[in-house]
Amino acid sequence: MHQLGSRSSDGTPRMKIGYVGGGSQGWAHTLINDLAQCEDVAGTVALYDVDYEAAAANAKLGNRVVDRADADGDWTFEAVRELDDALSDADFVVCSIQDPPEETFVHDIDLPKRYGIHQPVADTVGPGGTLRAMRAIPQYREIAATVRERCPDAWVINYTNPMTVCTRTLYEEFPEIKAIGLCHEVFQLQELFAEIAERHLEEADDVNREEIHVNVKGINHFTWIDEARWRGRDLYRFLDDELEARKPLNDFEPGAMADASYWVTNYRVAFDLYDRFGALPAAGDRHLVEFVPWYLDLDDPEELHRWGIRFTPSSARRPDEGPSQTERYLSGEDAFELSESGEELVDIVRALLGLEPVETHLNYPNEGQMADLPEGAVVETNALLTGDDVSPLTAGSLPDEVRSMVETHVTNQKTLVEAGFDGDLDRAFRAFLNDPLVTIDRAAAAALFTDLVEREREYLGAWNLEKSEVLSS
Amino acid sequence: MHQLGSRSSDGTPRMKIGYVGGGSQGWAHTLINDLAQCEDVAGTVALYDVDYEAAAANAKLGNRVVDRADADGDWTFEAVRELDDALSDADFVVCSIQDPPEETFVHDIDLPKRYGIHQPVADTVGPGGTLRAMRAIPQYREIAATVRERCPDAWVINYTNPMTVCTRTLYEEFPEIKAIGLCHEVFQLQELFAEIAERHLEEADDVNREEIHVNVKGINHFTWIDEARWRGRDLYRFLDDELEARKPLNDFEPGAMADASYWVTNYRVAFDLYDRFGALPAAGDRHLVEFVPWYLDLDDPEELHRWGIRFTPSSARRPDEGPSQTERYLSGEDAFELSESGEELVDIVRALLGLEPVETHLNYPNEGQMADLPEGAVVETNALLTGDDVSPLTAGSLPDEVRSMVETHVTNQKTLVEAGFDGDLDRAFRAFLNDPLVTIDRAAAAALFTDLVEREREYLGAWNLEKSEVLSS
Amino acid sequence: MHQLGSRSSDGTPRMKIGYVGGGSQGWAHTLINDLAQCEDVAGTVALYDVDYEAAAANAKLGNRVVDRADADGDWTFEAVRELDDALSDADFVVCSIQDPPEETFVHDIDLPKRYGIHQPVADTVGPGGTLRAMRAIPQYREIAATVRERCPDAWVINYTNPMTVCTRTLYEEFPEIKAIGLCHEVFQLQELFAEIAERHLEEADDVNREEIHVNVKGINHFTWIDEARWRGRDLYRFLDDELEARKPLNDFEPGAMADASYWVTNYRVAFDLYDRFGALPAAGDRHLVEFVPWYLDLDDPEELHRWGIRFTPSSARRPDEGPSQTERYLSGEDAFELSESGEELVDIVRALLGLEPVETHLNYPNEGQMADLPEGAVVETNALLTGDDVSPLTAGSLPDEVRSMVETHVTNQKTLVEAGFDGDLDRAFRAFLNDPLVTIDRAAAAALFTDLVEREREYLGAWNLEKSEVLSS
Amino acid sequence: MHQLGSRSSDGTPRMKIGYVGGGSQGWAHTLINDLAQCEDVAGTVALYDVDYEAAAANAKLGNRVVDRADADGDWTFEAVRELDDALSDADFVVCSIQDPPEETFVHDIDLPKRYGIHQPVADTVGPGGTLRAMRAIPQYREIAATVRERCPDAWVINYTNPMTVCTRTLYEEFPEIKAIGLCHEVFQLQELFAEIAERHLEEADDVNREEIHVNVKGINHFTWIDEARWRGRDLYRFLDDELEARKPLNDFEPGAMADASYWVTNYRVAFDLYDRFGALPAAGDRHLVEFVPWYLDLDDPEELHRWGIRFTPSSARRPDEGPSQTERYLSGEDAFELSESGEELVDIVRALLGLEPVETHLNYPNEGQMADLPEGAVVETNALLTGDDVSPLTAGSLPDEVRSMVETHVTNQKTLVEAGFDGDLDRAFRAFLNDPLVTIDRAAAAALFTDLVEREREYLGAWNLEKSEVLSS
Repeated sequence: MHQLGSRSSDGTPRMKIGYVGGGSQGWAHTLINDLAQCEDVAGTVALYDVDYEAAAANAKLGNRVVDRADADGDWTFEAVRELDDALSDADFVVCSIQDPPEETFVHDIDLPKRYGIHQPVADTVGPGGTLRAMRAIPQYREIAATVRERCPDAWVINYTNPMTVCTRTLYEEFPEIKAIGLCHEVFQLQELFAEIAERHLEEADDVNREEIHVNVKGINHFTWIDEARWRGRDLYRFLDDELEARKPLNDFEPGAMADASYWVTNYRVAFDLYDRFGALPAAGDRHLVEFVPWYLDLDDPEELHRWGIRFTPSSARRPDEGPSQTERYLSGEDAFELSESGEELVDIVRALLGLEPVETHLNYPNEGQMADLPEGAVVETNALLTGDDVSPLTAGSLPDEVRSMVETHVTNQKTLVEAGFDGDLDRAFRAFLNDPLVTIDRAAAAALFTDLVEREREYLGAWNLEKSEVLSS
Repeated sequence: MHQLGSRSSDGTPRMKIGYVGGGSQGWAHTLINDLAQCEDVAGTVALYDVDYEAAAANAKLGNRVVDRADADGDWTFEAVRELDDALSDADFVVCSIQDPPEETFVHDIDLPKRYGIHQPVADTVGPGGTLRAMRAIPQYREIAATVRERCPDAWVINYTNPMTVCTRTLYEEFPEIKAIGLCHEVFQLQELFAEIAERHLEEADDVNREEIHVNVKGINHFTWIDEARWRGRDLYRFLDDELEARKPLNDFEPGAMADASYWVTNYRVAFDLYDRFGALPAAGDRHLVEFVPWYLDLDDPEELHRWGIRFTPSSARRPDEGPSQTERYLSGEDAFELSESGEELVDIVRALLGLEPVETHLNYPNEGQMADLPEGAVVETNALLTGDDVSPLTAGSLPDEVRSMVETHVTNQKTLVEAGFDGDLDRAFRAFLNDPLVTIDRAAAAALFTDLVEREREYLGAWNLEKSEVLSS
Repeated sequence: MHQLGSRSSDGTPRMKIGYVGGGSQGWAHTLINDLAQCEDVAGTVALYDVDYEAAAANAKLGNRVVDRADADGDWTFEAVRELDDALSDADFVVCSIQDPPEETFVHDIDLPKRYGIHQPVADTVGPGGTLRAMRAIPQYREIAATVRERCPDAWVINYTNPMTVCTRTLYEEFPEIKAIGLCHEVFQLQELFAEIAERHLEEADDVNREEIHVNVKGINHFTWIDEARWRGRDLYRFLDDELEARKPLNDFEPGAMADASYWVTNYRVAFDLYDRFGALPAAGDRHLVEFVPWYLDLDDPEELHRWGIRFTPSSARRPDEGPSQTERYLSGEDAFELSESGEELVDIVRALLGLEPVETHLNYPNEGQMADLPEGAVVETNALLTGDDVSPLTAGSLPDEVRSMVETHVTNQKTLVEAGFDGDLDRAFRAFLNDPLVTIDRAAAAALFTDLVEREREYLGAWNLEKSEVLSS
Repeated sequence: MHQLGSRSSDGTPRMKIGYVGGGSQGWAHTLINDLAQCEDVAGTVALYDVDYEAAAANAKLGNRVVDRADADGDWTFEAVRELDDALSDADFVVCSIQDPPEETFVHDIDLPKRYGIHQPVADTVGPGGTLRAMRAIPQYREIAATVRERCPDAWVINYTNPMTVCTRTLYEEFPEIKAIGLCHEVFQLQELFAEIAERHLEEADDVNREEIHVNVKGINHFTWIDEARWRGRDLYRFLDDELEARKPLNDFEPGAMADASYWVTNYRVAFDLYDRFGALPAAGDRHLVEFVPWYLDLDDPEELHRWGIRFTPSSARRPDEGPSQTERYLSGEDAFELSESGEELVDIVRALLGLEPVETHLNYPNEGQMADLPEGAVVETNALLTGDDVSPLTAGSLPDEVRSMVETHVTNQKTLVEAGFDGDLDRAFRAFLNDPLVTIDRAAAAALFTDLVEREREYLGAWNLEKSEVLSS
């Protein structure tokens, strides 16, 4: 039996975090920020990245930050050259990885456009999400195998998309793994409800999103809610009024979003789905439109603006030129200010160490929390985290049509994972064809799929490309 | 306890058949033909139709035919003016009804085209099938209620489309009903396999479709098979060769089908789906393309010809001018020749009377025959019919993606029936929106739905049109 | 929408608790004790009891206690003569009722003994538990119907046995009810694990039972656990050593328990079941032996002592003579000292009011928390209580044989509730026969059942005794 | 693809039957009798038996019989020394094996009696059935493995008890096996209904059991029916009258059955269960009493006579002294007369060869035919057999309590098979303890189990006896 964390002489739990993707420019900085402010846990963070230099730079940055006077945390950062070393005896493993966008993500976005398939995000479902899943499955098999070998009792916390497929792969490779997938998407919805509370309840003033209790259910980026409360007060009942106030829902002008942030969401699609199905999606509109066939059959991409969202162009996915964020921090060009990140990772670590229970939503294999979806599917629901334990909360059922839509994606995700374990490209193509965005003719679909695979061939080495009938046809 | 049929003094079972839709120009003639040649069962056929004159003409025709020298059957036909009279003490009830096409079917076909939705058949799913379901549900509630009242132990045999929704409605209204739904669609596939047997097996010569055993599973018009045998010889193994021989599958020219029969099918779509999913659909291509989003997203309707099928225009659904077929028979303009109809109705009646067991495929509520579809859904599988008993045969599971596609329609059918019982038009609109052919924008979908409902308002009297938000929006 | 509790001018939530069984000598006193010490919630408690005088005495006692200087609570107690009045506009309903033991419980215990069936408790399953269920079902239907009428949004908290049947009846009568069932039984097991923690973990010292996290699953009094942790440290791994240390398990002498408390449990049966099935029961041995056939097939009742438990004789169930406890408090014969009761009721009320979340185990309809038991069965698992919300935590599966044993009782409970709603005594007899303790011949079982029904006839007025074949045979 | 059977020049299908247990004195003779009269199929029967001499004698007998003038069949019998040889290229495999009763069955019956557990048959469930299962599982693994190796497309027909465990083992070892289990038990019930038909229906005269259609459901020897028809006439409705006519059900005198056949059944237990649960068991009373706890808790074994049945003593299970039946046939001491055996084996072989479909009840893995029992459990229901295909008919659900009783045994059977594959004696002991007949104390149960295992040690070589805690305790 592994004991999660050890104790230093003063009783502070000490632990090792293995960080896969530790050269990142976003997540790694948040983690440094949060650990620098974490007093009651201490330890080491081993940063592993295929780009070792980036990981080394982050290690340098991390150590510099925690040594500052305004930092309370007792943490050491080090870069390692092998995944094995990062995970060896780790108590927690954090995964946040990404293939070089210019060789992958960019094609995921651009190639489908040639076939008339536009995707605002392209990282979860649709042609882009499917390819990303195909690249991720072998990588996550390796992570899971290394966990089994090096730190079988560690908690693995995944942030990488496609969230559901990555998390499911971990469990498929190593069924005893203790892994959860975390995503911020629902936070925004809680903020929306915080506003609703302030608007409709006299006693509600300056409501924090964390005070909003929503009953999350579904799969990542296609989650739904049917309950929302603030201090026990029902907020869900105000949705009909909110819906009316927003109508007509798609009244933005084409072009109106041309200068908007790529991440903007106005919850117009979410309310449209609420109006159709009686349950409110809990993800941003940019994701939602990728899961159903109704919004993206566009003659002109600018039409999407009507719904108050826009496409993220592939150019925005290419790395910026010039020094990286880490480099700018290290050079002093940018100041690394400690702030409240809003991220829950440290809270979750503390809960799993037995310090303070946390309730949050997370991605986890279905063992009854969503009784109307298949057992073993990775679903997103609320869960309670206590000492070395994650217990999902039962979420109840979805409206029939919603469940049916979700189930289509669950089936595709299962197919992709199974195909990935067999290296069976033709089986993956089945999931590709069955994706709601792929309404094009089969021959065209095969051509698009082939284009994508050929262009990203380098990242699909674990697949049996030679035996594929689709590729050779 | 009702005793199915009585016995005349010579031991011949005597029974009453109540025929709902007895004024028909097709089915009624087949029934007359088959009964005229049925020696070992006798009785009365009560013909009911909203068009009483048509039923009376068929009764006249029926009596004239069975009196002929070449007829062996001892049957009497009579037209009745009330459904109650047709069903009172009936042993069997046959249903084959249709609303006046010029007021319904024609709109089901033509209105969606204006919104870019083309349907070759439009009687099962898609916008047309949805409206047809909405008209049929109240009618089938009435039939089931009358059965409960007048002949609760009778066997009800349905031929009307949408088959699944009609049959499900019967059970929803009167759960103890003994009803089955019959459809010919699979017969053609058996003929295809008869050809395959002759082509590939030396010992197979002049194979009859009835000798072909196929394991049917799915829902009406979207059935699938994964086993086919002739006298225990596996035929399914020849499908890969058959597929190769047909490739490229969609190589017909646009326009090539301009003069073809409306009903032609070349099994190109079926083989395309076999190629995608590894199971072979058992329905004709005209139906198949309506269940999935890949084939009907056309700029020009003639493009459908590539797959060797064509659209049935609404003009072909309007009744012919001039005397009806019955009238032509009665006037002697056409001769009524006795023939082998290929229909199974009389065999089925004989089986249920305990004379000779029959195995065939039929539509029946799921009680385990399709363990991976919801209980209570009406599914199409093989069944064994013996004296007063129908027992479905377990069909095993479908490939994951196929099951998921089928399940989408099962959900929509359930929604439609529930909506119909509540008269809830907005709930029906949910199923409409969720149909794979409805990939259009929600506002457009609402406009189309409203158009259809307004145009067919007269046939939707049982729905609560006033309370509908869709209509009023 | 009902708003749970109102707020007084100083912001303290104010509420009404309706107490069904408010004349009790135990539970009512605990409630008075706990409310007297509850500062941040205030309100009224309406005490209803078939024995109005007892309720009135408790009201007097309650008001006197909260007025004392050492009491912080702002609560008013009043006795009411009608159930309607107790529940009218209540925010919470507490149920803790009991039929007069001398006319019911005493027979539940004594009559089966004549047929060789001995039960240590006789309030949950077995012949006694079955009769208790039969009496309770009509009573709980009435409570649920009154809740529907008078306070449909109230939270109903049940303490009455048979817990599972009572709670299931509430939901069967009023499916939208918000009801939970609470039982202490698992607390003792947590105490056992607190000891185990202290014994095996160096850092564990003076561990409180509330710090022990156990994963509860099963049905009330036949719950099981397969995880136990203290601050994230696994305690379950010590069970094999604990088992060995206790062996031989049934080495007490017959007669050894003659002077023991009726409630004593030495966890010998629990460990015996752990040894058999690999999961540890979470209820006391006195209950456990009633759910399985192996321990109570005794020639001499004293043999039960081998397992370190004893029978509670019916004499102990008769009310004491002389003044009641309430009377002794009111007369000053006994002093009512405020103490820490260990009861969770006030914590639960506070959680449901949105003050502070609570995790505890409770009885609730299965919606996935026990995926291998039927949906809708009332099961006992952990749950998280937040503002106006109860969310069960998924508990995972039970070992096959354990699930099968539990399922037998779930089936009987379902049968009893359905029988109770129909007043169908013969159907109830089926559950009686199917109880693992009823291994006697069917004729003997019918005689015992008849004896019990006749003796408790007055309390079975809602059952259709006239139509029963068992009774008349 | 294997082609079932080949064709001789005259078109007669020719095949090889491998007979495991071919030295038997009962089944082998029936097979010789039936094949001698089978004209339209021909071939070879390879007889394998651990007692080679017995197989050789049967081969001699078989060849002698088919050469007689009154025999039409064209069959050759040969004895083989290895299982491999018997199964090599077989088209059908018939299994009917038994361990030497004096070393196994005799103990299965006698040892439990010392602990107060009496079993009339002891070959299916209870202590005796459990031990028999434990011996059979390794043997059936070997058969399945040999089928996989030597004749993977053959149909395997099992007659050995415990039927359910043997058949389940075949599928567990080789999931693609095509195996069915056949048992006569239901035939007797059909005969009972033939009598009922004659008694209650005027037109029914000299009814043959094969004309009776019953809907079989459950597990072997604990099957139930809820429908019975003769030529479509409902017979089930007469059961209540039949029940009344038989009451009191257990009115035989103790001792009354002392001279009765060991196999006598008066359907008193079956009607008692029908009276309790509303469904009629389809097995003989001798089997039924072993599945439930109510009938065998006897002070004096003769009390069982009350129900019109008796125990088969172990002496009746020992082989007779003197020449075997085969030897008596060969010596001419007894004449081998061709007769109508009533066995269905040859009909089933013909159906699977594609000659003539057969409907019968058989044991087969659950794929939906019993939707309320676990998938994969071997259940007994009706099935349709056609060319190279077995399709179970959906049987519908069982009454709740009956399903629960059946499910207990299904769980035990699953446990036993899993334990057998692991060689885990302690896991097998869990099933032993959980058997409804084992109501004795756990220590006594362990002692009995140990006694049985020790006595039959020679036949339990595949189990890991050394590691067992039960044995060593």
